[in-house]
Amino acid sequence: MYTINWGDLTPELFLKEYWQKKPLLIKAGFNSFQDPITADQLAGLAMEQEIESRIIAHDNNEKWQVSHGPFEEFSEFGENNWTLLVQAVNNWSETTAALLLPFKFLPNWRIDDVMVSFSTPGAGVGPHLDQYDVFITQGEGKRRWQVGLPDAGLIELVPHEDLKQVSAFKPIIDEVTEPGDILYIPPNHPHNGVALENSMNYSVGFQAPSAQEMITALADTVIDKDIAGQRFGDPNRSITISPECLTTEDIKQLQSFMLTQTSDLDLFSDMISSFCTRNHHALEILIPVEPFTEEMVVSYLNDPEIFVRPVLGIKSLINEQNGDLYINGDRVSISENTRELAILIAKNQPLTSESIKSSMDCLNNIQMLTSVLNMGYWYID
Amino acid sequence: MYTINWGDLTPELFLKEYWQKKPLLIKAGFNSFQDPITADQLAGLAMEQEIESRIIAHDNNEKWQVSHGPFEEFSEFGENNWTLLVQAVNNWSETTAALLLPFKFLPNWRIDDVMVSFSTPGAGVGPHLDQYDVFITQGEGKRRWQVGLPDAGLIELVPHEDLKQVSAFKPIIDEVTEPGDILYIPPNHPHNGVALENSMNYSVGFQAPSAQEMITALADTVIDKDIAGQRFGDPNRSITISPECLTTEDIKQLQSFMLTQTSDLDLFSDMISSFCTRNHHALEILIPVEPFTEEMVVSYLNDPEIFVRPVLGIKSLINEQNGDLYINGDRVSISENTRELAILIAKNQPLTSESIKSSMDCLNNIQMLTSVLNMGYWYID
Ligand SMILES: O=C(O)CCC(=O)C(=O)O
Ligand SMILES: O=C(O)CCC(=O)C(=O)O
Ligand SMILES: [Co+2]
Ligand SMILES: [Co+2]
Repeated sequence: MYTINWGDLTPELFLKEYWQKKPLLIKAGFNSFQDPITADQLAGLAMEQEIESRIIAHDNNEKWQVSHGPFEEFSEFGENNWTLLVQAVNNWSETTAALLLPFKFLPNWRIDDVMVSFSTPGAGVGPHLDQYDVFITQGEGKRRWQVGLPDAGLIELVPHEDLKQVSAFKPIIDEVTEPGDILYIPPNHPHNGVALENSMNYSVGFQAPSAQEMITALADTVIDKDIAGQRFGDPNRSITISPECLTTEDIKQLQSFMLTQTSDLDLFSDMISSFCTRNHHALEILIPVEPFTEEMVVSYLNDPEIFVRPVLGIKSLINEQNGDLYINGDRVSISENTRELAILIAKNQPLTSESIKSSMDCLNNIQMLTSVLNMGYWYID
Repeated sequence: MYTINWGDLTPELFLKEYWQKKPLLIKAGFNSFQDPITADQLAGLAMEQEIESRIIAHDNNEKWQVSHGPFEEFSEFGENNWTLLVQAVNNWSETTAALLLPFKFLPNWRIDDVMVSFSTPGAGVGPHLDQYDVFITQGEGKRRWQVGLPDAGLIELVPHEDLKQVSAFKPIIDEVTEPGDILYIPPNHPHNGVALENSMNYSVGFQAPSAQEMITALADTVIDKDIAGQRFGDPNRSITISPECLTTEDIKQLQSFMLTQTSDLDLFSDMISSFCTRNHHALEILIPVEPFTEEMVVSYLNDPEIFVRPVLGIKSLINEQNGDLYINGDRVSISENTRELAILIAKNQPLTSESIKSSMDCLNNIQMLTSVLNMGYWYID
């Protein structure tokens, strides 16, 4: 169990002073930090077809190379100046997924994944910006991390077609990170980490939809559900003097028609909940070969040794506005009866049969759990 | 030149009393109406690959058949109970395009196209609804037209997979149309026309974007232009008690972020102008093999016999809000200098070299005309 050692800070103070505002290095943020995964295990994941991985290497003349996984061999890269990065390791490693737990002072829907890197001496991805907040924990090894402030004057560099970097920046943090140190970097703050020894780094990354993504998701939703199909009307039109003209008046009426049809809170709320719970990376959905019946679920849960577990990496939430449960983009309707169990499901932690025994007195709960199991988002173990 | 004989009405009264509200039959709306196209010419268009055409036939047991063009032969359909419908005939027949001119008391951007039908005795498409306003002019022949009121109780029928009809409705108009009669039908009013003799009908159809179409077009625009890419931020977040919850507060902030990023009038205005000038049917864009130079255009226009003509069916408008010209979905920037010529272009009527001689004193006008010619939307004749 990882617990953040805030020192003089508290989560409240962190949110007030640093979150989305200022970078921060929390020295020994995790006391006597234990790596959740070894470099060898990480290399193993990078051999899998469905797991996104990259190796970024540079030579001493600063020529950069990017290779994409799956990888079969690592020896060709030598001893220095290369780093292996694996996305969404929390979707495959339960111990790595545990690194998300200390960040529950932020809502789950803001959290994206844990990226893990293994870097040899001299290695890093180079100075760059990200659009998202990140907490980078130093595991095994040491690394020199520099972080600067947002600066419109920075030049975008593309030393390789798959690599975006920025020009040199003035660091306001410049420190060697040691096991258990946590570095918080807000969006658009340039940063650069160079390994001093073989090094593991764990990036808890956040997600925040852009307006562009939201409007695209809204468009997909109105098409999928075939809503907002009503057509603009103009029963009060007066005679047209300049037929070639699209008047400002008409433009404003068209826009306000579109906005009233689509600024519906229920529609948005449903759309954004699906959006935020869709995974950006592969994960192992476990759809049962034979669908569970309600009777089967009840009988399994009679065994006190049984666990019901969420698939690793599955995203879910309870939408406070409409009260429903969203898992992996899907909506599950919740009633007063099923609310308590739905919250447990949304918390994404394994449940013992004991802990949900009382819920199973209610048919609605059995039905809900059965359908979540049949969707493959949770499983019986 | 077609002129509507309004009788006791005026365009103003029509707009006030009927437009989008009530159906209306204007007997002899066109005095001594001359068909702009013959049945044979229409059949010729229906033989073309790029022109959308259908034949709808039924037998006396009310079994319906739909065939899609292009057609090679019509004799197989016999003498009765079949109708040929050709979309956007105004994109191919200049005399048919002239049928749009009497409707200039409505703005061009609302007008879609002229669909033409030829029906043999007994023929029609059956009782149905449309989402758009239409003015149907009776040409050659006679037809019995019935029009009813919107009625949520009507049942949708699909007598053939390509044919939507509605159950029987109570007509409030039930008349035999004769050459020159104009029948106006607002959206969602059930109607049915059955030919009494071989009959030509000319439907001037309107367009009105749906909220769904607008939001989809807006999504396409923000992606194309790569705007609204800024990400949601929450620097004022306070500590989360229920991390599994997407709060109503967060949902509202996400929505208002999306709306402020996308409810920009300039963005909407540009998007809707492109949207409204995109043709829904094929048309003959005439991109010159050798692009015109400005010198070439000037020298052509020195010839007083020259016409500059819009491609048939091309849609264009002047956006009053941003002042620019839109043709066939493309935006052409307009300055004070080019405004007058841009309006002439947006009016979509052939220009003599004489009529634009004075404009040609200004280089900006020459440039604009050259680029419109090179886009293939207008041509020199
Ligand atoms: O671990 C690394 O080398 C990259 C970390 C990083 O830049 C990030 O997570 O944003
Ligand atoms: O001409 C026809 O048979 C069909 C006309 C019609 O229903 C329409 O234009 O809406
Ligand atoms: Co980064
Ligand atoms: Co119709």
